[in-house]
Amino acid sequence: MEMNRRNFLEMVGLAGGSAAVYQMMNVMGLAAPSTTYAQPSLTGGGQGKKVLILGAGLAGMVSAYELQKAGYEIEILEYNPKAGGRVWTLRGGDKYTELGGQTQTCAFDKGLYINPGPWRIPHNHQAYQHYAREFGVKLEVFPMTNYRALIHRKSGVRERIGPVSVDMQGHISELLAKAVNQNALDQSLTPEDKGKLLEALKGWGFLDKNYAYTKSLATSLYRGYDRDPGARLEPGTPSTPLTLSAILKNDLWTDLSTPLLYEFHSTIFEPVGGIDAMAKAFEARTGRFIKYRSRVTNIKQDTTGVTATYEDLASGTTKTARGDYCICTIPLSILSQIPSTGLDSKLTEAIKKVPYAPSFKAGLQYKRRFWEQDEAIYGGITYTDQSMGLMSYPANNYNSTGKGVVLGAYMFGPDAVKFTGMTPADRLKEVLRQNTVIHPQAAKEFENGISVGWHRVPWTLGCYGLYSEKTREEYYPTLCALHDRFILAGEHTSYWNAWQEGALLAGTSAVEIIHKAAQGNA
Amino acid sequence: MEMNRRNFLEMVGLAGGSAAVYQMMNVMGLAAPSTTYAQPSLTGGGQGKKVLILGAGLAGMVSAYELQKAGYEIEILEYNPKAGGRVWTLRGGDKYTELGGQTQTCAFDKGLYINPGPWRIPHNHQAYQHYAREFGVKLEVFPMTNYRALIHRKSGVRERIGPVSVDMQGHISELLAKAVNQNALDQSLTPEDKGKLLEALKGWGFLDKNYAYTKSLATSLYRGYDRDPGARLEPGTPSTPLTLSAILKNDLWTDLSTPLLYEFHSTIFEPVGGIDAMAKAFEARTGRFIKYRSRVTNIKQDTTGVTATYEDLASGTTKTARGDYCICTIPLSILSQIPSTGLDSKLTEAIKKVPYAPSFKAGLQYKRRFWEQDEAIYGGITYTDQSMGLMSYPANNYNSTGKGVVLGAYMFGPDAVKFTGMTPADRLKEVLRQNTVIHPQAAKEFENGISVGWHRVPWTLGCYGLYSEKTREEYYPTLCALHDRFILAGEHTSYWNAWQEGALLAGTSAVEIIHKAAQGNA
Repeated sequence: MEMNRRNFLEMVGLAGGSAAVYQMMNVMGLAAPSTTYAQPSLTGGGQGKKVLILGAGLAGMVSAYELQKAGYEIEILEYNPKAGGRVWTLRGGDKYTELGGQTQTCAFDKGLYINPGPWRIPHNHQAYQHYAREFGVKLEVFPMTNYRALIHRKSGVRERIGPVSVDMQGHISELLAKAVNQNALDQSLTPEDKGKLLEALKGWGFLDKNYAYTKSLATSLYRGYDRDPGARLEPGTPSTPLTLSAILKNDLWTDLSTPLLYEFHSTIFEPVGGIDAMAKAFEARTGRFIKYRSRVTNIKQDTTGVTATYEDLASGTTKTARGDYCICTIPLSILSQIPSTGLDSKLTEAIKKVPYAPSFKAGLQYKRRFWEQDEAIYGGITYTDQSMGLMSYPANNYNSTGKGVVLGAYMFGPDAVKFTGMTPADRLKEVLRQNTVIHPQAAKEFENGISVGWHRVPWTLGCYGLYSEKTREEYYPTLCALHDRFILAGEHTSYWNAWQEGALLAGTSAVEIIHKAAQGNA
Repeated sequence: MEMNRRNFLEMVGLAGGSAAVYQMMNVMGLAAPSTTYAQPSLTGGGQGKKVLILGAGLAGMVSAYELQKAGYEIEILEYNPKAGGRVWTLRGGDKYTELGGQTQTCAFDKGLYINPGPWRIPHNHQAYQHYAREFGVKLEVFPMTNYRALIHRKSGVRERIGPVSVDMQGHISELLAKAVNQNALDQSLTPEDKGKLLEALKGWGFLDKNYAYTKSLATSLYRGYDRDPGARLEPGTPSTPLTLSAILKNDLWTDLSTPLLYEFHSTIFEPVGGIDAMAKAFEARTGRFIKYRSRVTNIKQDTTGVTATYEDLASGTTKTARGDYCICTIPLSILSQIPSTGLDSKLTEAIKKVPYAPSFKAGLQYKRRFWEQDEAIYGGITYTDQSMGLMSYPANNYNSTGKGVVLGAYMFGPDAVKFTGMTPADRLKEVLRQNTVIHPQAAKEFENGISVGWHRVPWTLGCYGLYSEKTREEYYPTLCALHDRFILAGEHTSYWNAWQEGALLAGTSAVEIIHKAAQGNA
């Protein structure tokens, strides 16, 4: 038998106990997070060299932050009057004008906000966690698994996630136990495993002594009750499990595994006060390099550097900026429209080949936190097959008697295109209508809202770089490579697409690549 | 076919859509939390009547709070110099003397604490949530489901909960798909369900097109990677699933269903700053009725009221207090040792029949939050088959560069008795030794700690009333009933044993029963 890693660790365990295993895991690099982020170490420094950075999103700012520490001269051109790019929070008073000219003014009360772009911070995003620790960006738990939140179907289904999870596990276990007890799987199980599996199915699958998943106080201990236990003579009344047929017919299982996605594994967070906390932390450290309201109109690489021509939107004048090297973090959707010279034609072709995902989000301010007060839903996500996609409840100020902003819609693809195609007023009307189907209180409690259709966001024209297997193979390596003195960086040059982690890792890897080249050229 | 509730709702759904279903659910009382807590409404008031309350834990204080609003005169006798009973937080500087005389002084740094008793607040504990809202007790999320935390076995197993969860679901699905594809379950499945089940097993069970659960980037998308995806040319490297045999042999599945227990369903909370926040909130509202350091030595009921004799521990003198009615919240473990007259002999017998659970907790202060910094474990629980039971990481101040207090041990039963039997110093030594088996860093980072063995806590002599099916049947109804002018209240007169919710509901139900009697006797 081949000695695989786990066998080996088991042997170590038998010999030396689990401390020995742990030490061996450390040696083998398994104990630590599977990626431990290490800040780039730019040995030798960058004195006398200038790096021009296009875009002051996270990729641009983390590049600037690390390069300036090594002594590089930095200049950042940014289209917007503020930094952060897609790392963006909308609060009361904020104005947003989308492509096409429609302007919305956010009317949320003080302290309330919506994050139109990224909104969650996985614990396994090591670069983000590293900078959060370094900059003191406070995180609060995002209850990605909320068993009290709902699975809703247009057919009329409206079930809590917890009981459906228990029912799925229960029915699957009952069926498998039946097959095992009929000896149908004797070819796949050793006699020892067979016995242990039956025991496991009973425990893990909430089965009774006859291997049945039933309506009982025993299963209600997991799925909840029709009437909860109380004081004195109220033991609770058992709830009725959903049938397997009902779960299958309504595809209820499809929403159960989302929190098991590695990128969503609890513990998962959000920054206190809005997702832009990290953008602001970087801006505080790199803002002095940023030329805001600078629209890049041309990129030219020559043998000694890169020159960007840009429109200074404040004065309406055309200017240029130049670096010995250039890190370009402009989304490909925008970059593909900017003329360039001196760039590898394979690169300019690749830049045009990656579509950007349409996505839509709407934040709705409700007068009363009815999801908490009426239904005991605290944070987390309700899933629906309505085109609104999902609904997410605020993950802070729990039990507040004040107002709350709910993410009332979040979806990708054709439905996102459809919502974005409406006027802002019509979008909210439709989102509210759909929210009301799930929570009838919504209609009465609604106050105001704001929406962002990502393919109409002027500075990105889409949510994130959407790769197919084909484009990942044909164009992605080109997009990731250094082209003389020019390199791309952003979530689109990472495998953490649409995540801030992708932008951060793309930025720091660009820094390392540029530094290596600069040392070589020195 | 019988028309059950769910069939009926499905019909309503077909006819009127999900809003109609929701309205019908409201009518049927299904939409709201399964128990909605309602404050007792004491019509007619309690003017001119006095209620004597024994014990200023949550049951006693909630009783006092509700009764005084209705005009009752209140007097509370409390053994301790402060209110709260088991709702107790230990902070730096606190001294604790257990039965037997051993005194520990908590040496935690400022801001750090451990909750030796209750520590978590379920979202479905409606009475607690009600008072939290009313009193402004702030709650923060307790990450009960932390997929990054560990399952540890003395055999040397040290696995993350997330990947084990995914593997269990994967293997079970693979086996069931095999049985279904072999037509072994055709008698249990309709042809339609059979097809849909196979589809579901693929999705829910992470199976490939051949219904196999394999090592692949597709399963790593759920269970995590050997090396995480990164920027540029790092797609991540797939991790190797545990075998079903390994999961079964080490009983890893036993720790997977805990967060699916209804009482642990996310979203679950802890009060900001310590569990005693609720006790303090009640004390602020009822403290004026409390006579602290009063040890009840005799209870006497006569035809017009109840008199308690007590030792005033400050002065060493014997005093009496009397009420027209008495709510006694003294734990049965203590109450059984207090002589009484005028109480139903069935009641005094029942009081002696309920043992109190032994339980042990230790809080350990570590210099560095190594669980976060080295392993990206943020809050939540690691399970082990060592006698320490479990380890829980602080659910606040995430990413702080300072110190942290970990719940280093928590168990019930014989292991709790064993730990409690040691000296406080030996307890910590053993807890630290076991913590170090799981986290080798613990040995080096340990600073100090404190432990509580509940059957040595002088004011309760145990953790909570431990009912068997037999005692629940024979004695529980007697313990719950009003006996002329005397009624018990506490978690032991509820089906939420060991939970603050039980104490609150027992208190408010006692108040209602007393009020009804008082109205009758008026």
